[in-house]
Amino acid sequence: MLTYNLNERKGPLYKKLYESIKEDICQGKILSGEKMPSKRTLAKNLGISTITIENAYDQLMGEGYIYAVPKKGYYVSDISGLQKVKVPVVASCHIQMPQKDENVRFDFSSNHTESANFPFSVWAKLMRETISLREKELLKVSPCGGVPELRQAIATHLGAFRGMQVDPDQIIVGAGTEYLYGMLVKLLGKDKIYCIENPGYKKIRQIYESNGAQCIFSNMDASGILVEELEKCDIAHISPTHHFPTGITMPVTRRYELLAWANEKEGRYIIEDDYDSEFRLNGKPIPSLQSIDACGKVIYMNTFSKSLTSTIRISYMVLPEALANEYYRKLAFYACTVSTFEQYTLASFISKGYFEKHINRMRLHYGRKREQVLEVLRKNLSSKQCKILENDSGLHFILELHTRLTDREVKERLWNKKIKISTVSDFCMDEKETDSHQFILNYSNMDVEKLEGAIEELKSLL
Amino acid sequence: MLTYNLNERKGPLYKKLYESIKEDICQGKILSGEKMPSKRTLAKNLGISTITIENAYDQLMGEGYIYAVPKKGYYVSDISGLQKVKVPVVASCHIQMPQKDENVRFDFSSNHTESANFPFSVWAKLMRETISLREKELLKVSPCGGVPELRQAIATHLGAFRGMQVDPDQIIVGAGTEYLYGMLVKLLGKDKIYCIENPGYKKIRQIYESNGAQCIFSNMDASGILVEELEKCDIAHISPTHHFPTGITMPVTRRYELLAWANEKEGRYIIEDDYDSEFRLNGKPIPSLQSIDACGKVIYMNTFSKSLTSTIRISYMVLPEALANEYYRKLAFYACTVSTFEQYTLASFISKGYFEKHINRMRLHYGRKREQVLEVLRKNLSSKQCKILENDSGLHFILELHTRLTDREVKERLWNKKIKISTVSDFCMDEKETDSHQFILNYSNMDVEKLEGAIEELKSLL
Repeated sequence: MLTYNLNERKGPLYKKLYESIKEDICQGKILSGEKMPSKRTLAKNLGISTITIENAYDQLMGEGYIYAVPKKGYYVSDISGLQKVKVPVVASCHIQMPQKDENVRFDFSSNHTESANFPFSVWAKLMRETISLREKELLKVSPCGGVPELRQAIATHLGAFRGMQVDPDQIIVGAGTEYLYGMLVKLLGKDKIYCIENPGYKKIRQIYESNGAQCIFSNMDASGILVEELEKCDIAHISPTHHFPTGITMPVTRRYELLAWANEKEGRYIIEDDYDSEFRLNGKPIPSLQSIDACGKVIYMNTFSKSLTSTIRISYMVLPEALANEYYRKLAFYACTVSTFEQYTLASFISKGYFEKHINRMRLHYGRKREQVLEVLRKNLSSKQCKILENDSGLHFILELHTRLTDREVKERLWNKKIKISTVSDFCMDEKETDSHQFILNYSNMDVEKLEGAIEELKSLL
Repeated sequence: MLTYNLNERKGPLYKKLYESIKEDICQGKILSGEKMPSKRTLAKNLGISTITIENAYDQLMGEGYIYAVPKKGYYVSDISGLQKVKVPVVASCHIQMPQKDENVRFDFSSNHTESANFPFSVWAKLMRETISLREKELLKVSPCGGVPELRQAIATHLGAFRGMQVDPDQIIVGAGTEYLYGMLVKLLGKDKIYCIENPGYKKIRQIYESNGAQCIFSNMDASGILVEELEKCDIAHISPTHHFPTGITMPVTRRYELLAWANEKEGRYIIEDDYDSEFRLNGKPIPSLQSIDACGKVIYMNTFSKSLTSTIRISYMVLPEALANEYYRKLAFYACTVSTFEQYTLASFISKGYFEKHINRMRLHYGRKREQVLEVLRKNLSSKQCKILENDSGLHFILELHTRLTDREVKERLWNKKIKISTVSDFCMDEKETDSHQFILNYSNMDVEKLEGAIEELKSLL
């Protein structure tokens, strides 16, 4: 008969008993197939209640150490499998986290937006309002494309701000553009060939490739991507409003050439990545490619991570009618990745006019900041030393340095002084080293007061 | 010289002028290559300021209708490309949204959790607290795996509740398990063969396949997935704590067999989907497979969408050390998909003990509800008519009906009475129709007061 000194262990009585018996089974003190004492007998023997025994037996059964035979009793399971696995001593966990450069003195390469500009108090107010007024809706599952209120607000905004006629059902909301790119690969097919701009964001390539799609690259002239280089591809991923890093805005003729390319063959699509259209600083926004596409060939994408704050992971895409229908047929089983709390908050942020106000404020702010930066540059660098390439839009411009140093040498020498800068050639998709002499000045997160010092260091290299 | 009646149009003066000129260019009234009047001349002619002309010209330039030649002036672009694209009349948008059954009288098949059980006021309080206390952190970009506070809270919870020793850096937080499955395919490779349980959730198969991975299915016996059927596969996706729909808890011997299988070959892994471990209603939770894995072969996954509310899209996975390192090397460029607002709110929800309290409350609640449902069943159905299969855990059980009707007939006849039910055979991966006579009773979202009426209808079929 099993006898245990249960006082040696911690926790509720049933747990102490369960652990004791389990140990005996694992150590082979009770053998496979052996009959366990009945609950009543064991209770009597140990001087505890049958309910405690029952709880311990239930747990042992649940985990598979014993089994019950109706009207007969409990038996020990065959646990010979347990011995088959060698259990090595667990070493402590060594995880190498992605490194961050902590010691940067000045960073020309960061394209984050200043978090101080986020209208935090308004957002907090609307979030509180959402929590108190929408309890019922908040706990309803969001449709796969997002809650109707948010999609309606986005559609209205796109109408007013970008001249786009969009049915809210065409809009799919998701947790970041990276996520939506992945959904697009699922929708359009990973057997398709995706063409991205060269130079361009390498992350876009990484995302397509990590989703199993093949990427090719198209070179650019002053009007943007070269249409003749698209012959072999199915999907062109472009940012016609303001290309990074070149700053090119695609003129209307090239836009129509692109649409003509897409119309030539079934299955061809253009992904219009409109990530910073809100930051055209003068004049009215350039009409989107989507707004002049009458054949359902343009997938429009935008994000609030850029225009609001990168910690808000809400992006959306506008699918042409046929693709929207295909999305709902093929991918509606994917739940929306954005929580209803933030969807409703953003919906009222847009529909109450705060988003427009915020964008206008940001355009003024960045316009002023841009002027300040340009002034510092013009004051400290002569036109013999450099040329500034900029076109009134976006949150960066390009400084073309007249230097005999290679791009790599400039970057390394600056890095020795803890100044981080990237070049247009860093964004070239072919890995071969070319010298663009074009340096990218992201000013959205720049500390203008320290700029002069950084420019001094740059000058000393020339 | 261009002359326009600008009063016919709406909006700012520069915009009216820009639109007029653009129209003339598109209609061929001003030809490609033609020189535009100088800003000063046009201003004089129209009787408006040169600044207005400049703004209009800037917009036309931005969009590519005209271009500037330094020291010469402005010229009309070649827009012959515009005519190449036929512009069909846009038909109104017809989008077929996924249909919902609105007229269901009683639904045995819904596995949503009752939203009324979500501790809304506590959550709202913590969200408000987060907003007022964490303004600075909220606007910092989350590390790719989630904010440290949340990962620490999850690690502590897993230690206390599931006996798991987890380094917070092993935890990757994401917007829903569906999203994390996709990341796992990227991490482990879509060339791997993924094995899922048969029967099981078809959605898991859909997700793997839509991510480009190949799925095979393994049959199950009373102990769960059959290890001998795993020979050809690399990754086994299982839910050993409580399998849906069979309700099987995998006994410890089978668990060790599975671990032995994973250890036999490099590249083999087990994905432990622990989606409803919180709802083991009696006794202490079954130890997770991860907690007995000493060789880094188990990827543990869980979600808060099930235990809190499905509108909160926060899930996580615990990667073995080597895979965690690979994740940070290969996939750290993916930003975390959950907003910082909700990550911090959840972190304090867990670390302040609300999560544990909530789970305990839910276990009591569902335990009582389960008893009520079982009572209604026992009262209205005899053991000749049916057998109830249940094992004290999870939010469903199985009703085995003694009937000559096929599964499809039962379902159709109930559906005619607006009662929705699903069967175990609905979850079989091979599409052939078999009759399990096993009907799934999800009670988490069930209206117990109407249950008797639904059972009456069911009885009338027997």
